Amino acid sequence: MPRYALKIEYDGGPFAGWQRQAQGQASVQGAVEAALAKLEPGAHTIAAAGRTDAGVHATGQVATCDLARDWEPFRLSEALNFHLKPAPVAILQAVRVADDFHARFSAVERRYTFRLVQRRAPVTHDKGLVWQVLNPLDGAAMRAGAAHLVGHHDFTTFRSSICQAASPVKTLDEITVEEMRYPGGTEFRFHLRARSFLHNQVRSIVGTLERVGAGSWAPEAVKDALEARARAACGPVCPPQGLYLTGVGYPADPF
Amino acid sequence: MPRYALKIEYDGGPFAGWQRQAQGQASVQGAVEAALAKLEPGAHTIAAAGRTDAGVHATGQVATCDLARDWEPFRLSEALNFHLKPAPVAILQAVRVADDFHARFSAVERRYTFRLVQRRAPVTHDKGLVWQVLNPLDGAAMRAGAAHLVGHHDFTTFRSSICQAASPVKTLDEITVEEMRYPGGTEFRFHLRARSFLHNQVRSIVGTLERVGAGSWAPEAVKDALEARARAACGPVCPPQGLYLTGVGYPADPF
Repeated sequence: MPRYALKIEYDGGPFAGWQRQAQGQASVQGAVEAALAKLEPGAHTIAAAGRTDAGVHATGQVATCDLARDWEPFRLSEALNFHLKPAPVAILQAVRVADDFHARFSAVERRYTFRLVQRRAPVTHDKGLVWQVLNPLDGAAMRAGAAHLVGHHDFTTFRSSICQAASPVKTLDEITVEEMRYPGGTEFRFHLRARSFLHNQVRSIVGTLERVGAGSWAPEAVKDALEARARAACGPVCPPQGLYLTGVGYPADPF
Repeated sequence: MPRYALKIEYDGGPFAGWQRQAQGQASVQGAVEAALAKLEPGAHTIAAAGRTDAGVHATGQVATCDLARDWEPFRLSEALNFHLKPAPVAILQAVRVADDFHARFSAVERRYTFRLVQRRAPVTHDKGLVWQVLNPLDGAAMRAGAAHLVGHHDFTTFRSSICQAASPVKTLDEITVEEMRYPGGTEFRFHLRARSFLHNQVRSIVGTLERVGAGSWAPEAVKDALEARARAACGPVCPPQGLYLTGVGYPADPF
């Protein structure tokens, strides 16, 4: 069976997350699998690089699927987009890949962006697409706090208690905090890059850095929290709607 | 009565436009006036710098209102935002202004941005917030076409037949076409700046430039269309959902 890799964008708002749900709640995986079943009847199971939580978005999720027919990749993406409507899920690209390529196990890098908007007035166009914070934030302090997290560490502090990863030790290759003008306020974009992330790691980190930006934590307190290797040392986990899986890296980019 | 200027952001999607409607359809003006009536009972009539059409957005609309009480400006904006919920309208800032300041008549510059996304897959996060075009577009050709429109011209070609302006002669101070990466495609942002615009002028210009980008019009055809001074010479008027009133200029910025 020919295997395809799909680059997928979605608005996580209406979904219980990436993963197909037993109880029939809407999931992104379920939506894509249902669209595949319109093309080739029967059950489909697709594998994704990152199993995003409820409310989390993607602009560069990658999933692999096996199909019986030999689909021209562009036609496959167009047909899937047709059947996905009106769900806010879009196939940005489909490519034919080798049989041993796996969206999750072949991945060597995940990239996430978290959008935080700081202003008083409620957001309008970006409702559900950013985390809004009312209090002023100090970008330099957040950058100083973030610097303590880059590198090879035991991230137990920044890991959900239900995380299933074998080890809490991960290498965080990048955290940059971009600061830009936003109507009536400021937007901060946190860009994180690693081979893989623990469950809730990005939201635990951003929630903690927001406390640093607000002035309730000193930047050095992030180092203390990391070294505590204790979930209780973490700041508040921030909400999902600012989080985007923006890209996945492979030894040879299939797209 | 103390006069206030409000800087307003809104998602134009659910509204019949800025202007209050006789038949009770939702309008941005109506929403803000209803919020004002919660603060000071009675009828309110506010004046805006740009009377945007149905579906058109703003990130920097300006309106003036007269109130009986002497409101602390920050409290005024917070109270209005409270009463505006859940409408996608937000007061970004309120300031006290002189009695002869008028949002519309004092304005000496309007700035609009039009967001056009070129890609095959349907947009998800930006649904209703951009105009999506499926065919490839040539940014350099659109820039060459746009250059013919900058300056002092008779814009009859790019003016709605129901435009009420006294004269079709306007000075367009700027059109820049910004080109940026967009997941699975390209985004073009058209930035236009003038003392004032004719009805449908921005959408007539962007719709025409899209035809240039698509290759059906040569860039020089934009000059011919302008010189024809005839509505029939215009390209298709593009849809409203990519258009944003981003700012208004005054001799002395009140904000």
